[in-house]
Amino acid sequence: MTQNSTAVRTRRHDPERRDHIIDACLTVIADRGLAGTSHRRVAALADVPLGSMTYHFTGMDDLLHEAFTRFIDEVATRFEARMDAATTPEEAERAVVAIIDQDVLASHRELVLSHELYTLAARDPSYRGLTDSWMRRSRRALERRFDPLTARLLDALIEGLTIHRALATETRGTEEIREAVARIVRTGGR
Amino acid sequence: MTQNSTAVRTRRHDPERRDHIIDACLTVIADRGLAGTSHRRVAALADVPLGSMTYHFTGMDDLLHEAFTRFIDEVATRFEARMDAATTPEEAERAVVAIIDQDVLASHRELVLSHELYTLAARDPSYRGLTDSWMRRSRRALERRFDPLTARLLDALIEGLTIHRALATETRGTEEIREAVARIVRTGGR
Repeated sequence: MTQNSTAVRTRRHDPERRDHIIDACLTVIADRGLAGTSHRRVAALADVPLGSMTYHFTGMDDLLHEAFTRFIDEVATRFEARMDAATTPEEAERAVVAIIDQDVLASHRELVLSHELYTLAARDPSYRGLTDSWMRRSRRALERRFDPLTARLLDALIEGLTIHRALATETRGTEEIREAVARIVRTGGR
Repeated sequence: MTQNSTAVRTRRHDPERRDHIIDACLTVIADRGLAGTSHRRVAALADVPLGSMTYHFTGMDDLLHEAFTRFIDEVATRFEARMDAATTPEEAERAVVAIIDQDVLASHRELVLSHELYTLAARDPSYRGLTDSWMRRSRRALERRFDPLTARLLDALIEGLTIHRALATETRGTEEIREAVARIVRTGGR
């Protein structure tokens, strides 16, 4: 250790440092995958000493939980803003279409981070608290404009269409999204 | 190397060995994730010498492509059998419900492998040929019973509902699946 221990002690308590580490962790996951994410790499990107990692986080699982909590909050906040801005049923449908068509595919980072989180949660149930709370938050935002069952089905549709559009080799138009949302929202009997 | 080189040469040409390696690769990915998948681990599980890996595969990407091609074929074959067995529109709807309710969640291995593949494809477009051909195959199977647009929307719905059911902490009933499928299949005007 070449650092002065007093300086380290002072900087350790810097709340911004914890934030930096969490942001750096998301960047490392997006760039290298969970496979390439280590305390060392995150510390290097955050420009903090390795010891700072164990001061702020009990281990990699703790850091990953914090990082994905932040990621979910970013995405869910935008989702809520889209739904809150819709004041009529037509606007609410258009907001759902926009979420599928513009929000998720807009960012390679978000696409990769979502899938890394899903893969973690598929393997390790301790991450399902995160994916579950994400779904609850999306559903609550949808429930401001749609009945609870429709909200749940729309949330699943958003997931499926987003993934299929991201993982397809051809570009798919907006028309199929509009049609899918319209079919789910239509609640009359058969 | 303790092996006799003549024996190695003979066994190298064993077509079953290549199969073994591909199966072993899927098991290693399911157990340890792509992060924990190496030539060495796959060779050990397949009980083949390391040299056999480079004989049969040009590298890890080649092996992963072969392994996920096999995985997709397993899942798509069952999907097709479900759809082919349905001979009326009502049976076709019930087949889609069964795919969501029983097939995908039935196996932890398949859940994990699907997500590992999606994460790969999200990061590396060279894997989107695989995810794209998987989607095409599912859509073709659905198109035997539904019009092309409905088939595409059902495929996205299957994806979304399956993922949300897998990544939720509570158990969700079959009723919401039946309702979602019915809404997508209903093609009358608003």
